[in-house]
Amino acid sequence: MALSPVSTYTFAVEPFTEDAAGRLSWRVLGNRLLRCAGLHAAERGFGFADVVQSGRAWVLSRLVIEMQRMPASGEGYAISTWVAGLKRQFTERRYRIAAPGGEVLGYAYSIWALISTDTRRPIDLSAMGDEAAPLRAVPDEPFPDIRPGRIRVHEAERPAAEHTCRYTDLDVNGHLNSIRYIELLLDLFPPERFGSAGERPAAPRRIDMAYCAETAPGERIRLFADDLSGDSVQVEMRKDDGTVVARGEVTF
Amino acid sequence: MALSPVSTYTFAVEPFTEDAAGRLSWRVLGNRLLRCAGLHAAERGFGFADVVQSGRAWVLSRLVIEMQRMPASGEGYAISTWVAGLKRQFTERRYRIAAPGGEVLGYAYSIWALISTDTRRPIDLSAMGDEAAPLRAVPDEPFPDIRPGRIRVHEAERPAAEHTCRYTDLDVNGHLNSIRYIELLLDLFPPERFGSAGERPAAPRRIDMAYCAETAPGERIRLFADDLSGDSVQVEMRKDDGTVVARGEVTF
Repeated sequence: MALSPVSTYTFAVEPFTEDAAGRLSWRVLGNRLLRCAGLHAAERGFGFADVVQSGRAWVLSRLVIEMQRMPASGEGYAISTWVAGLKRQFTERRYRIAAPGGEVLGYAYSIWALISTDTRRPIDLSAMGDEAAPLRAVPDEPFPDIRPGRIRVHEAERPAAEHTCRYTDLDVNGHLNSIRYIELLLDLFPPERFGSAGERPAAPRRIDMAYCAETAPGERIRLFADDLSGDSVQVEMRKDDGTVVARGEVTF
Repeated sequence: MALSPVSTYTFAVEPFTEDAAGRLSWRVLGNRLLRCAGLHAAERGFGFADVVQSGRAWVLSRLVIEMQRMPASGEGYAISTWVAGLKRQFTERRYRIAAPGGEVLGYAYSIWALISTDTRRPIDLSAMGDEAAPLRAVPDEPFPDIRPGRIRVHEAERPAAEHTCRYTDLDVNGHLNSIRYIELLLDLFPPERFGSAGERPAAPRRIDMAYCAETAPGERIRLFADDLSGDSVQVEMRKDDGTVVARGEVTF
């Protein structure tokens, strides 16, 4: 029996995983989106553990999360995910986040590359055979246009913040966790910007991340932004040698 | 039917919640200990939501966690908790963390005060009537001597690190989350100190925290330590005005 191309995983907002307004934290939501990618892929034979056996690894390149409402403390929520397209060097994965009654809370969009762990170069996904069949099973699911945009920082000469990669920042690969970059972005703003749960059902409402390089323990990254006061703020994160590790846009 | 004085809650180590060695992170473990305190208390009528109705709040004063082994990615674990004593101003809560087969992974010890939210002063728990009966039902559970010690920093004049309280640090009360102080402590050390999962089944093996004051958004705390190289490191966290917000001891 063929597996449906969409899988759904259910969670609840546990106390002590919310923000100050009692909404699910971006950290937990983000890491669960990555977790669901892993579960969905593993069920179809191309999960992290599967591809590592052939010297390959999935690498996150873009992540957009757009929320109408963040679930609140104690609330359940379901993350549905599916693969929505296979390009030469990238695969597109989509997500829908919904309340138990069906209310759509938000959507997420991600781009992943399959790289060779030897060469660190992307593998040509279009040349893959039957193995990639599950990646080609694109379901007919409604999805809004939340595609990533161009993120550019032009004028900033002085960093708005800096961060040195430490133990609690690390993921199992020993690099700064992808979602931790989102936290560094959010921490550029005063907590008042995020409002209360009632007035701001999701704050920010959209996060758009472009991942460019990895950050190792002890490395310092500096965050540059032209202007932090607008409704939409673009940020570039650079290592001391100028390498851009990530770009991000936060929309309130 | 009387509820047993011990409650047990089961969890699993989800991928993307581990440290670089694939062990459950201290952040998730710590927040789940607080969560289990809340669940256990609520089941007995004196949870966070119950006491707030009468203008009171539970405040964490000490937390010791001593682990023989941290559960690894994908593993299940159970947290059992019970109240082990009622003093005038404090109640003692104990925890056992165990693997599904029964292997004890570690223990935790905590001290909580019930304060009046008006006066911020502790309530005399010994003068409470029937309401406090569940706090007096002390079970006969084996428990090692992991009591908190004296944490003193004598000579440090220059901070080892500093941190300004930001949005992602906040708990639902709008203060720096109790477990976040543990992360600030751990981040004083180079990631190499924590070793790999095989060589270091728990690293550090013990954390002892004393909570003294709250940190609000925008406030800066500085971490002072006499010496970071020993097996046991004592740290004091102070605001700019000298107020000690927390002390901690990490034992590798």
